[in-house]
Amino acid sequence: MSSVIEVETKIEVPDLTKIAARLRSLGAVYLGGTAQHDTYLNAPHRDYAETDEALRVRETDTGTEITYKGPKQQASGSKARSEITLSVASAEDAIRLLSATGFRVSTVVKKDREEYSYCDTTIALDRVEGLGTYIEIEVLTNEDIAAANTTIESVKKELRISGAHIPESYLELLLTKA
Amino acid sequence: MSSVIEVETKIEVPDLTKIAARLRSLGAVYLGGTAQHDTYLNAPHRDYAETDEALRVRETDTGTEITYKGPKQQASGSKARSEITLSVASAEDAIRLLSATGFRVSTVVKKDREEYSYCDTTIALDRVEGLGTYIEIEVLTNEDIAAANTTIESVKKELRISGAHIPESYLELLLTKA
Repeated sequence: MSSVIEVETKIEVPDLTKIAARLRSLGAVYLGGTAQHDTYLNAPHRDYAETDEALRVRETDTGTEITYKGPKQQASGSKARSEITLSVASAEDAIRLLSATGFRVSTVVKKDREEYSYCDTTIALDRVEGLGTYIEIEVLTNEDIAAANTTIESVKKELRISGAHIPESYLELLLTKA
Repeated sequence: MSSVIEVETKIEVPDLTKIAARLRSLGAVYLGGTAQHDTYLNAPHRDYAETDEALRVRETDTGTEITYKGPKQQASGSKARSEITLSVASAEDAIRLLSATGFRVSTVVKKDREEYSYCDTTIALDRVEGLGTYIEIEVLTNEDIAAANTTIESVKKELRISGAHIPESYLELLLTKA
């Protein structure tokens, strides 16, 4: 329905505590922290790793949801992809039901995420089990992707972050590592 | 986890109002009525009509749930089948998400159901759109299927119902009719 595009960068960082302190000193608004337990499932009739789709059951402190993610639309130059999310009552029942219909659990991604709002961006500080520590900087825009990227670069400078953009999802990084 | 077996009969009846009146005069407890809107989906990798499985999104006045039903276990002599149910926030989102993962809507079953409790049975009076009016008499038992069948036969007599037991589900009846 909406034409909002999510422009996002992810960078591996050595020290989340230092960035959190820097964010607070810059006046960023702390949005809260949560533990996210994500179970990814693969389809019975095709390999989501090949089709660039994903089916995820996410459990957090505040609730559980199932999300389907369509292939990344690379033509648009952004990382936009269609997403359908369904709130459900139980992660365990969701995984049991999807397994009964033929889906198979492929990977579990566990992370602790702390979120901040700063200068039109949402910033996530992620500690991903078995992977490392990362910052994600995200801008929602209607169409101006160039301006969104400028905003992201400017925030990176203010936070004194210099690492390279990582295009892969945590799921892909974990699968590559395995 | 539980070893409870559901023993159930379904009979087509011409007049639900008469049976409801009879139930009340016998002292049956009215449990409530609800409109059930069931959307059945078929799998992308096999035909549930052939494998005797079912995936259903059920919307009622009180909530929405997805249910997977495994094949009927005919060896046990009852209509027992494994069921996994997941409460969800939205029927529309559930159908969109399942459709995105490759499931296809096969049939919609709409019915009005009035339920009564009487003599260790649960009795449903169903008005099924496009099909007709039915009574379902159900007993939950731990093991004694013969005793459960005796209870059902005795309740049928008290209600003066003589029609034949219909083994098919409403879904199967609608698919046969189509």
